[in-house]
Amino acid sequence: MRTEPGRWMRAEIAEQPDVVARVVEREARTAARLGEQLRRRGVALAVLAARGSSDHAAAVGKYLIEWACAIPAALAAPSMATLYGTRLRLRGAAVIGVSQSGRSPDVVEYLRMARRAGALTVAVTNESRSPLARAADETLLCRAGRERSVAATKTFAAQVAALALIAGEWARGPRGGSVLRGLRRAPARLSRVVRRGKCSGELARRLAAAERCIVLARGFAYPAALETGLKLKESAALAAEGASAADYLHGPIAAAGPGLAALMFGPRGPGLTSVRSAAVKLRAAGAEVLAVTADPALRAAADYCCDAAAGWPEPLSALPLAALGQMTAYELARLKGLDPDHPAGLRKVTETW
Amino acid sequence: MRTEPGRWMRAEIAEQPDVVARVVEREARTAARLGEQLRRRGVALAVLAARGSSDHAAAVGKYLIEWACAIPAALAAPSMATLYGTRLRLRGAAVIGVSQSGRSPDVVEYLRMARRAGALTVAVTNESRSPLARAADETLLCRAGRERSVAATKTFAAQVAALALIAGEWARGPRGGSVLRGLRRAPARLSRVVRRGKCSGELARRLAAAERCIVLARGFAYPAALETGLKLKESAALAAEGASAADYLHGPIAAAGPGLAALMFGPRGPGLTSVRSAAVKLRAAGAEVLAVTADPALRAAADYCCDAAAGWPEPLSALPLAALGQMTAYELARLKGLDPDHPAGLRKVTETW
Repeated sequence: MRTEPGRWMRAEIAEQPDVVARVVEREARTAARLGEQLRRRGVALAVLAARGSSDHAAAVGKYLIEWACAIPAALAAPSMATLYGTRLRLRGAAVIGVSQSGRSPDVVEYLRMARRAGALTVAVTNESRSPLARAADETLLCRAGRERSVAATKTFAAQVAALALIAGEWARGPRGGSVLRGLRRAPARLSRVVRRGKCSGELARRLAAAERCIVLARGFAYPAALETGLKLKESAALAAEGASAADYLHGPIAAAGPGLAALMFGPRGPGLTSVRSAAVKLRAAGAEVLAVTADPALRAAADYCCDAAAGWPEPLSALPLAALGQMTAYELARLKGLDPDHPAGLRKVTETW
Repeated sequence: MRTEPGRWMRAEIAEQPDVVARVVEREARTAARLGEQLRRRGVALAVLAARGSSDHAAAVGKYLIEWACAIPAALAAPSMATLYGTRLRLRGAAVIGVSQSGRSPDVVEYLRMARRAGALTVAVTNESRSPLARAADETLLCRAGRERSVAATKTFAAQVAALALIAGEWARGPRGGSVLRGLRRAPARLSRVVRRGKCSGELARRLAAAERCIVLARGFAYPAALETGLKLKESAALAAEGASAADYLHGPIAAAGPGLAALMFGPRGPGLTSVRSAAVKLRAAGAEVLAVTADPALRAAADYCCDAAAGWPEPLSALPLAALGQMTAYELARLKGLDPDHPAGLRKVTETW
């Protein structure tokens, strides 16, 4: 029996609300204990090590930890440990490895290096018996079940939820509280996003006519732009790229013109200013502007607009926006006759050294 | 009198050896004093705040500080300070703002926030009386003279040299020593790169026939890939993107095919393995592979190859590779009839909030 192309990706996108609900419920205790430990030890630095989609989830984690805990957070260069044999001075730091399979060799090796250096090490993974979990002092599980599609979808959402739990429990204070409250409401809100296919369907039809695509956002939504760019590339074979609207305005915009579709994420918040300016300039340059926003000014500058993040607190807006990006990549792949479950030349486990 | 389009970019690329020589000579004392201060205070974290090309120089700084000093280094999310009003706990950290003009408002604001939080703040800038310099405890000057082209070229090299000086002086030890020795030899070596136009001329001719371009590297050369992708976009209006060869292999490669030119940076070092694998897979997918390397295996997988980083220590390979990227972007812009000194819609100073 032939299976429908992309059926796993489609099903796994739809599972996200349940997966996030499981993480929030069943990892709460581990996260609370970890948060207490992080505060008690006076941990003053977080380092997040990951690759690919997990690295985009890690970027959300960086923003949430800095915003809620006021603790500086760094995205690791794993090559320091694996290629260059550097043993960083990480005593007093928390090092969080993020990997669906828990088997990305360079993320595992980075965590081992960090543990030898005296860091508190944390695994965020879907596999409780993976090398990453074994290398870590504490593990938060993604509880996503098996992910069959090569494209990471539900595990991305689970990683973001787990990192948000860590940030919320570590922080205490009003910002931490708002992250935890937002997380508890996330499953119901995410259900509404993954059930409605109108926005992603129209975005996919418009992207099918584009030669290339830029996905722009600023602040908390920026990692969702990176992740959507990656999904459009790997699942739908579109020449797409995620970028910061702030950076884009001061360089890459010079290459904008007809044939370029600009997908702009504009959740309500202070990052909107840059996204609006970029939209106006992109449209003037002849690009097609597709805006995912409730902001009237941004909608006015767009050729097409819809929304996915309405009602979400901005710090968690990567969850609905990345889900919309996944749905759009799935729809676009199907329009192009591709199988998003098995993109050309890709395997599930990232085995970089 | 009409001026030749791109004359400033061309002239400023050629000035790089002199600029680097001035930084190495005239900032040595400041860097030594700063290094001593960083060690004496037991600084345990470096945070680098920058935008655009300066952010790519900052990425080189991150690698050099981690490798030579074993101190974790983070690239800042400036929006934390400017958009979200977060006062990070940065006591005991060094925060380095990198900006040619010293007037990027969000980099200046990040440094001010860091200083109030008790960090040791450092400016790396071309303008001694700029707001960035005034906001910092210590300033390393780029001594590049006025940069008239919108494209940052000589100031990128100067920023890398200044950050390498900081890393080398901070570190002591054999790795620090090798960075400082490499820096002293950099001007003469860089002269040979900027004087030879054969490689960049042929790369530009081949890129002129490409629909889009990916620039790949791993480890120390990775920031040069990011910077070359940006230069090709902003100066030559090519749909180009820099990426890590390790990340590229596990996702974006699915969108590779005919019409894509892959510019691969392969300086001698442990990062070569990923770059070689990516080259073989990209060629099999129908992309044109252009390799900048002395490595026989990578050359064998390429449609065209030349070298720019031969003889350079790998930790400083971003200097010759970025210079080659600038030259290629200049040549490509001229082939396309563009003026790389004044790309469409760009201004010199990055004024993001």
